[in-house]
This record gives sequence, structure tokens and C-alpha cells, in this order.
Amino acid sequence: MADKKSKITIYDISKEAGVSIATVSRVLNDSNNVNPKTREKITEVMEKMGYKPNAFARGLGLDTMKTIGILCADSSDTYLAKAVYLIEEALRQNNYDSLLCCTGYDFQNKQKSLDLLISKKVDAAILVGSNFLDTTVSSNNAYIKEAAKSIPIMLLNACFECQNVYSLFCDDLNATKSAVEFLVKKGRKKILYLYSSKSYSGVKKLEGYKEALKENNLSLSDDYIVYCNSNRDDVNGFVKTIEEVYEKGLRFDAVVSSEDYLAIAALKFAVKRGISVPKDLSIIGYNNSPMALMTQPEITSVDNRLEALSKQLVATLLGVLEGKEMPAKTEYKGILIERDSTES
Amino acid sequence: MADKKSKITIYDISKEAGVSIATVSRVLNDSNNVNPKTREKITEVMEKMGYKPNAFARGLGLDTMKTIGILCADSSDTYLAKAVYLIEEALRQNNYDSLLCCTGYDFQNKQKSLDLLISKKVDAAILVGSNFLDTTVSSNNAYIKEAAKSIPIMLLNACFECQNVYSLFCDDLNATKSAVEFLVKKGRKKILYLYSSKSYSGVKKLEGYKEALKENNLSLSDDYIVYCNSNRDDVNGFVKTIEEVYEKGLRFDAVVSSEDYLAIAALKFAVKRGISVPKDLSIIGYNNSPMALMTQPEITSVDNRLEALSKQLVATLLGVLEGKEMPAKTEYKGILIERDSTES
Repeated sequence: MADKKSKITIYDISKEAGVSIATVSRVLNDSNNVNPKTREKITEVMEKMGYKPNAFARGLGLDTMKTIGILCADSSDTYLAKAVYLIEEALRQNNYDSLLCCTGYDFQNKQKSLDLLISKKVDAAILVGSNFLDTTVSSNNAYIKEAAKSIPIMLLNACFECQNVYSLFCDDLNATKSAVEFLVKKGRKKILYLYSSKSYSGVKKLEGYKEALKENNLSLSDDYIVYCNSNRDDVNGFVKTIEEVYEKGLRFDAVVSSEDYLAIAALKFAVKRGISVPKDLSIIGYNNSPMALMTQPEITSVDNRLEALSKQLVATLLGVLEGKEMPAKTEYKGILIERDSTES
Repeated sequence: MADKKSKITIYDISKEAGVSIATVSRVLNDSNNVNPKTREKITEVMEKMGYKPNAFARGLGLDTMKTIGILCADSSDTYLAKAVYLIEEALRQNNYDSLLCCTGYDFQNKQKSLDLLISKKVDAAILVGSNFLDTTVSSNNAYIKEAAKSIPIMLLNACFECQNVYSLFCDDLNATKSAVEFLVKKGRKKILYLYSSKSYSGVKKLEGYKEALKENNLSLSDDYIVYCNSNRDDVNGFVKTIEEVYEKGLRFDAVVSSEDYLAIAALKFAVKRGISVPKDLSIIGYNNSPMALMTQPEITSVDNRLEALSKQLVATLLGVLEGKEMPAKTEYKGILIERDSTES
């Protein structure tokens, strides 16, 4: 019964009371602009139905700023920037303004930026990218918990369980696992893994790589897991890193990478060395970004559903702001987009 | 004399009065935290020197929000996103927060976003990208003029003359002209021009192409000026556009493009057709973005000084906020970065 009650929304109230949602919202917002009799009726219905007003449903009211705060570590990261773009577009279509803070990767500054947005009276905050979850220390993401006490927090590409926090993410573990298994089925046995981030999703991807090898009885040493630096513009730096492991004698017939730009570096390495792609080296990227189309051969890549996730995130947020019960977790499956850098 | 007076800053006042800049600033901000005698002295010095307090110098005071608004049409544009990143980093280093609005390309929304930032009490606004200047209609950029009445407006990569507006830009006309002349000196005669934007800087670049041809007595028809669509992720769409003009019989021995991603498409076209780069086709991009390093051969590109401009923009802004007289226009020269897509 408690469960059922908690799912009663302002939609149910408006239906039962025979008034518009806007009127219910005005009552929730203590607006004076409601006929006293109507107010009384709505209050009665709420009591009868056991409705507990969601503080955030008030965002629907007349006093809302209709402004959403967005946090993004780095606007020059193509992947994050695309997500921000899609989210802002969807918000704008729904008559919400947005304010974006680019925080950098330092957690103190992330917290400060979130405080800043809250001080600017945003209706909710969207944290774009898995780097907003602290995977290394025991902070337990207190800054997110704290913020969620005042506004709904939406996480894109990360998952964190906490009241008033909504997580939307791609199943990066299984997406990476499937990419590796795709190569194994083509007969590849020495699969190099390139990565550049130890974020929440970075950790999941690496787990996917390891699980795929284990389940297919391929035992590769840690030498095959190669960390490239995190300066994503440093294509030639990545090429150098790959050349270094190659010169140490490491041989591989496939590359799976956590980012498209690392796959591009792998291709550049192969062309320099005269290694034929995909015949002697198969390459898979991640993100299915426009970069994957810039090279020849074009790069096979995991589509981690950025577009669908970004749109669903805004839909979920709008539901939350309207006082609807929305799922705390939304997970999408990744899809491997086959191109010429892997054998068909 | 009037000119001289207008150049007196709070630095001059602090020097003359023998007090710190912070104290002058507190007086300007009507702070109570100033010794009445000191206040009197500073006021006297201001009167004596004919100092007209710059409303924006007050940003230095204790009541400042220390928050700068940034407008950017599209955060998923690599070039704009890089500028935003550099600007935010520089602001952060100077203890300024920033709030970013991604406006899209519609002018009504640009104006709305600027109003939103002003309502959030930002100390200044930075408009990133030349698309904030309306080159097509007779609006005369009234929204910028209006905003400049309340806060300083900084323009990156655009030039607009108006009080309290500061423009920092690259000389795109001459940079493009030099790129074309570089090819002419190598003996190229049929130079295709690819572009995708009719923004302020887009117009300048095209002018530079035309001037270079004219001054070198090369008469090419408008068929050589090819507009590609504005969806920057559509590499294969650009390739198709180039193939279409090629199939109509147009022949060219060089490509100059207004963006690196168009140069990448030109390279992709050449590889598909079996045209040797740079031997039979030289290619030059624009922006000197990381993309120019992702292909083989790497792409020769015009460095339009984004990094230097972004840093100088923040330095100029800080000067303005401190009440210093700063140049209304700052122009940088572009630099051609030679790589393997052109003959050495």
C-alpha cells in the first residue's frame, strides 16, 4: 500500500479533483492565484489519496526559473560536448534554459560548480560523463548526495544509487565484451586493449575486455592492456605508445580501444608499419564518433547510444519536474557498428 | 585633455592617493568598509584627476559575483568547444567562475541567452565564435549593443565596433590569402575552395581566396567555390559534394578549405579516386585542429591562433574589470602549419 501511495502523482490528483495539472501545481507552490474552494478540494483529494508532494514537482509551478544546470568536466571532449549539445537542444525544445559549467576534472571544483548552479536557482542539475563519480577514494560522492537534497540530479553515463538521483547509462561492460567476442569469433587471439581513462565507464570497459578473454579461455598478460595518456588531442603521442610496446616485441592481431581517437592512432601505427588493416590487424573504436568516418579504412566502433541516452535523460528529467515517478536507473545496450577496420 | 582624462584608471587613483586598488574599488562600490577619511581623500583625488568611474570597474569590488557568462552557438563544434575550454581554464585560474549558454544558431535564442546570463548577474559576457555577428540582415546587432550597456561584452573571432565591446580575432582574410598564395607559388593554378559557413569569419576567408586569385592573375569561375553543407559531422556528405563537382568535369590541383573537416573530406575523395596527395592534389585545411593529425598524410592547416586569442581575451577582460583601459580590437595573424598534404 505504501508503495502504491508513493506512486500517486499530481496527474492522479488533477484527474480525481477534476482540475488541471497547473492548478494542482499552483496549490503545491502555495500560489495565491487559486480559488479557496478549489484549493480546499485539491487538498482533500491529496489527503484521501495519500499523496506526498514531491518537493521537485514544485518546479512545475509559476515560481520556477525553468533553468537547468549542466556540469561537464571538459567541453573540448568531443563525446561530452556532443552529449551537452543534445541535452541542451532537447531542453530548449521544452522551453527550458540551461546553464553549463565546465568544471575540469578536479572534484573540489566539481563541487564548487554544482554549488554555483544551485545558488543560481536552477531547477535540476545534469552531470554529463562518468568522471563525476569518484571511483578512487572513499568520498562516496558526498557532493552529489548533498546536492540531491535540494534539486534532482541526473547522471549521464554513470550510475549512482541515491534518493533524487537519476542515472542513465550504457552497459559499457557488455558492449566492450561483445566487441572483443566479435574479434575472437573472427579468429583473433592477441587482442591489444588501449585505454585513456580510469573513470566509472573506463573501469567497466576494461572489465568487459577481461571477462571476454576469460570466458573464451584466452589468457593474455597485462602487457596487452596499454594505458595511453589522457590528452585526447595527442594522436601522435598515442602512436608512439603503441610503437613502444611493439618494439618491445609485443605482437597483436587486433586492437580494442576505449575511445575512437585511440583506434585512429592504432590505424596510423599500422599504416606507418605497413601492417594491413583489417587483414593483419583488426581495429575497434568506441563512441561511434564522427572521427570513425574520417579515416580510410573507416573504423568499426561501439555506439554507446549517446543520442538516445541524452534524449531519454531530458524526458526523465521533465517527468521528475512534473512530479511523475521516474525510473532511478535507465540502461541502454551498446551496438557494434561494423566498418572496414574489421573483417566482415 | 578629454582623451587623457578618459584614460585615467583606478590604478592612477590608487597611486595618487597612496592607497591600494582594493581600497579604491571599495569606494567605488560604496562599501562601508572604508575609513571615512580615506574615502574622502580618494574622492578628492578622483575629482582632481577628472576620473569618471567605469561602472564595470565595480566588478572588482566586494559585491562582485566573480562569474563570467559565456555564449557559444554549439558546444559540439570542436573549434568553439576548444575556445570555451581555454577561456574557462584561464578564468578559473583567475578565480572566476563561468556560466555557459549554448544558444544554437538562431538570433532570437542568442539574445534570450544573453538576457538570461545578465539576469544571473554575471560580471561580463564572452561571445565565442563569429556567428554571433549577424552578417545578413540590418539588425546591426542591436542585442549586443543593448547588453553592452550593462556589462562588458567580449567577442572571440569577430569584430564589432561599439562602446564596451572588445573584439579579439584572427586576420582570416589574409591568412586564407597567404594559404592560396603558398599554393600558387608551388605552381598550382586550379584551386578549389570548400566552405561551410557564411559567418563573419567565413565571409573574410572567402574574400581572402578571391583576393589571392585576383592579385595573381588567376581567373577561376564561381564553380571553384563549393559550398558544403553545415553539418560538420557529415564527412561522407562532403566527399559526395566534391565527387559531384568532379563528375561534372571540374578539375583542380589544389584544395583550400575553410575548416579542417572539409580538408579531410578532400583527402578521402582523393584516396577513393586514386589521386596522389600532395603530388597531384595539394590540400590545406583551416583551424589547425587535432583532426589535421588524424589522417595520413597529415593535413597542412592554417593556425588561426585560437589558443593565443582565448588567453588574450581573458587577460583583456580582467583588465576591463579592473578598470584599466584595454584595446577595443586585438588582431592576430594566422600561421600556415605545413604538413604532408602540401609539397615542401
